[in-house]
Amino acid sequence: MRLQEATTCSSSSLVDVVLNAHHPPDDDDTGDAMPPSSLLHGEQEQDGLLVPPLNFAMVDHGVYRSGFPDLSNLPFLHTLRLRSVLCLCPEPYPEPNHHFLRSHGITLFQFGIDGSKELGFGTENRCCLQEPFVNIPEDRIREALKVVLDVKNHPVLIHCKRGKHRTGCVVGCLRKLQRWCLTSIFDEYQRFAAAKARVSDLRFMELFDISSLKHLPASFSC
Amino acid sequence: MRLQEATTCSSSSLVDVVLNAHHPPDDDDTGDAMPPSSLLHGEQEQDGLLVPPLNFAMVDHGVYRSGFPDLSNLPFLHTLRLRSVLCLCPEPYPEPNHHFLRSHGITLFQFGIDGSKELGFGTENRCCLQEPFVNIPEDRIREALKVVLDVKNHPVLIHCKRGKHRTGCVVGCLRKLQRWCLTSIFDEYQRFAAAKARVSDLRFMELFDISSLKHLPASFSC
Repeated sequence: MRLQEATTCSSSSLVDVVLNAHHPPDDDDTGDAMPPSSLLHGEQEQDGLLVPPLNFAMVDHGVYRSGFPDLSNLPFLHTLRLRSVLCLCPEPYPEPNHHFLRSHGITLFQFGIDGSKELGFGTENRCCLQEPFVNIPEDRIREALKVVLDVKNHPVLIHCKRGKHRTGCVVGCLRKLQRWCLTSIFDEYQRFAAAKARVSDLRFMELFDISSLKHLPASFSC
Repeated sequence: MRLQEATTCSSSSLVDVVLNAHHPPDDDDTGDAMPPSSLLHGEQEQDGLLVPPLNFAMVDHGVYRSGFPDLSNLPFLHTLRLRSVLCLCPEPYPEPNHHFLRSHGITLFQFGIDGSKELGFGTENRCCLQEPFVNIPEDRIREALKVVLDVKNHPVLIHCKRGKHRTGCVVGCLRKLQRWCLTSIFDEYQRFAAAKARVSDLRFMELFDISSLKHLPASFSC
């Protein structure tokens, strides 16, 4: 497998990166910046270290979340023994990722949701620019949730580009099904979205109706 | 069970709280402020909603992390069917929590680590005040890790007061055992510590020697 070249970085500067990470200048769903998981990639390959995708975390038994996996993340994903991947980006899935899924018998579910900022009102409104209202298509989130709730698809990795907004909404709706209070759902969303939290995502999760999705598999924690 | 009174809070102000949460004024291991998980508690009890502890997350199969659970969190903890709790605070464990553990046959492991800031050099140094060096006792982290690695103790909840520094160090050392690269370990630590990230914790995790702890249970992801 040919791996893309990556920037190497000393531990000292890594510490600086981490301590200043709560205000990343390019940390946005629409940005093209290299995710931090690609840092140190060359060294880690030599050491046999694993590189989880950006914003990777375990959601519950058989459910993981992350940003878009790049080539450096594939050895790590292999250790998860995934049965499916749920991608929330509308763009065609990259061929190297497709190849990885095919060669490991992993099913791809794709529910494309536009991740770009669509302003709810006048673009001259600074408040609006800082906290954009993005239209989350409820039907797609609902279809995505059905995939997540089907244990036949487990272990499943939910991902979008940065693992913040679209993934955060799907996980937030799953937490509603798990009867988490809204404070805790928002707290978890905030942990991944950080300074990029969107009021429209919070509203979407608050208003999302779970009454037709009452069948939580027994493997889940709650 | 008598539950403590809690502040109620409208959804609108909750949104404000979340969107401004990356600079919490009282968000420190040594603070006495009520954790956000206590917000809305009264309403949630009525609705049968669950309140995970502050900074709660699943680390891996059979391993959870959080801040200090209060009474409002006990119904949620019950759903995790814990076999043990690993507390990293040196203070005597509160009687109500003790009672919960006893009544559910949950074993308490306590490895007390002081969570207060101890400045590595002159207190007049502003930089030092912002990023304090705290002495992490390696032997206790090592003993704590052995408890986490023993599947007979699973499911286990690791917690300190805020679920940021002490818990973050134990989880970070566990990630080293799972062969995660340092960038990803720091990224995860940062997600929970946010603006309170400590350079001394990062250094501790970087320097922690895992060579005597090579026996990772098969139940872990990597």
